[in-house]
Amino acid sequence: MGNEGSFAAVGLKVWKAQIDRADKLFGTLSSEEVLREIAPGRNRLLYLWGHLTAMHDAMLPLLGLGERLHPEFDVAFVSNPDKSEAAIPSHEEVRQAWKTVNGELWKGFEKMSWSDWLQRHTAVSEEDFARDASRNRFAILLSRTNHLSYHLGQAGLGLKGAA
Amino acid sequence: MGNEGSFAAVGLKVWKAQIDRADKLFGTLSSEEVLREIAPGRNRLLYLWGHLTAMHDAMLPLLGLGERLHPEFDVAFVSNPDKSEAAIPSHEEVRQAWKTVNGELWKGFEKMSWSDWLQRHTAVSEEDFARDASRNRFAILLSRTNHLSYHLGQAGLGLKGAA
Repeated sequence: MGNEGSFAAVGLKVWKAQIDRADKLFGTLSSEEVLREIAPGRNRLLYLWGHLTAMHDAMLPLLGLGERLHPEFDVAFVSNPDKSEAAIPSHEEVRQAWKTVNGELWKGFEKMSWSDWLQRHTAVSEEDFARDASRNRFAILLSRTNHLSYHLGQAGLGLKGAA
Repeated sequence: MGNEGSFAAVGLKVWKAQIDRADKLFGTLSSEEVLREIAPGRNRLLYLWGHLTAMHDAMLPLLGLGERLHPEFDVAFVSNPDKSEAAIPSHEEVRQAWKTVNGELWKGFEKMSWSDWLQRHTAVSEEDFARDASRNRFAILLSRTNHLSYHLGQAGLGLKGAA
């Protein structure tokens, strides 16, 4: 593995660490706990979990790894705030989708070479990418890892005794 | 700039984006607002800000960039929970330290070549590093960026109207 591979490996390790953390936090919640708000009047844990699932699902086409698996999650968890939609995916549906989406992403990551990470992501035009080569797939990996951490910090507040 | 440099540049860009976000969030707080809890019974915003400052200060020796500037922040913001110490640094002291520490870090980052990022950080022994080369300075950069995002997610909850 060359030096470029070392950088990509560190990025993937940090991603994986946050996914493991999320698995532990969300994966052990009861159906009652998942409906708790992270703070009075704020988002419920289920909304955060669904939101993260939808954002990760959207990484599949963004990184050229395939079609979205759950585009229907966007109405419930991205384009509308929590408690505004009458019907949202159930606890069990979110749990399954979270697992499937992250499994699919990881399979894709494992097939990517270090040079794939430096290619443009599909939301930037060739023209814009020529002007700013930092708008690449590695930037998506790092920013989505930080997005996950951001909401993990909030989710921890919804759980008794968590820091 | 070679390919390795592209990876390091993306890591620095994402770090900088989170620092800017924190500057905006914490930098505009009044002396009253900074004493607000992020949620009932939880940490105050000043504690989070001081905690982030202390953790970033500790990156200076960890990355071989110099001595710590504010080791005295640890008692107030790392080794003890919020509201347990009788005296902690003031709002103005935290504001100044945050600015100085991150400025010093950035000066150091700018002098680092891409290969410096792949060197071991000072908290890992040469022996352990030989076994696992991913315990390098780039891993510290990415994990501290995520640590910052984690607490930014919480800090946003302490502010009226923030998401």
